[in-house]
Amino acid sequence: MKFCQHCASPVVHQIPPGDDKLRYCCLQCDVVFYDNPRNIVGTLPVLGEQVLLCRRAIEPRRGLWTLPAGFLENGETTLQGAIRETQEEAGATVQSGDCTLYSLFNLPDINQVYFFFLATLQSPQFHPGTESLEVALFSETQIPWNELAFSVVRVTLEHYFADRRQAHFPVRMFDLRHSPERQLQTTLISSSTGTFTPRSST
Amino acid sequence: MKFCQHCASPVVHQIPPGDDKLRYCCLQCDVVFYDNPRNIVGTLPVLGEQVLLCRRAIEPRRGLWTLPAGFLENGETTLQGAIRETQEEAGATVQSGDCTLYSLFNLPDINQVYFFFLATLQSPQFHPGTESLEVALFSETQIPWNELAFSVVRVTLEHYFADRRQAHFPVRMFDLRHSPERQLQTTLISSSTGTFTPRSST
Repeated sequence: MKFCQHCASPVVHQIPPGDDKLRYCCLQCDVVFYDNPRNIVGTLPVLGEQVLLCRRAIEPRRGLWTLPAGFLENGETTLQGAIRETQEEAGATVQSGDCTLYSLFNLPDINQVYFFFLATLQSPQFHPGTESLEVALFSETQIPWNELAFSVVRVTLEHYFADRRQAHFPVRMFDLRHSPERQLQTTLISSSTGTFTPRSST
Repeated sequence: MKFCQHCASPVVHQIPPGDDKLRYCCLQCDVVFYDNPRNIVGTLPVLGEQVLLCRRAIEPRRGLWTLPAGFLENGETTLQGAIRETQEEAGATVQSGDCTLYSLFNLPDINQVYFFFLATLQSPQFHPGTESLEVALFSETQIPWNELAFSVVRVTLEHYFADRRQAHFPVRMFDLRHSPERQLQTTLISSSTGTFTPRSST
């Protein structure tokens, strides 16, 4: 950022009063410009034993398979955004009442937070949107495990098929970080076991 | 937004090719500027039978009580942000291993998503930060229910004390919207019961 979006004056990169982080500031407008993580919302659409995947028509990871997901827009809820992306990328209809929050990922290296909802497909009707080359249903053994676009997709699918054997689908949150060796590390941060035992105050 | 932050040219408000929403665009730089919802992260710090609240020293809702929470910053996870805000606003230390994801709120009217983590306080040591007038522990009957700053705080506290009676703390997601009469409506969107029964494919 070089110029103020309100007045076109050059911005300065400084720590504002009362803050402790460098921000771009316009001294003319007395405005601080904040840059914050973005949310990506999507679904894991399920029909019986199968799940729906999309083959990406766009970069990054063109040609690889993914779950329908995209940036949360202003004015919508995370679930509305996930349902919209499912329609846009997979031409697939899921109803909000058939969806449940399932996996969340913090990606602090790239300032993103992912939300995936488990979703029941209404019917086996779907078609690739402009960002997909093809859309298809896969059983567990058919999943193209070596052609998945993103770690968040692989981790979500792995847990889904394991959870299905237990018939129990807890909400999980993970951190995904690059190690100094550029290896991607997945850490489970929270799982909705329903238990919480605070320390005694005495 | 009036000017490009890169080149100071006037921006245009148009629907970019392949998009379906109005965005601010710089035709000189061939750049689209996206505006997306922001995340607010915080904790519900618990010590035995009591929970920690902060009385706000800043607007909005100065003088009213809240849970420690603030905007997620680039480069941190939602839980790191929640722990940082707990330290900054309440001078209270919580460890990531003592925290579990608890309540999420979509506020599409103001383009925010809230994350609250249940957190075990290390000790009864805390002090107000610059954004708090005071910080104190409250049992359920002591909570200043009529002086809470935000609906997300009230809903989170109500569910916490109800959940404690069941000794079960599911992860819940809510939508908070203003009705046409400006009444705030809370809708439970998802609760981690662990069940999910997809429709059969046959």
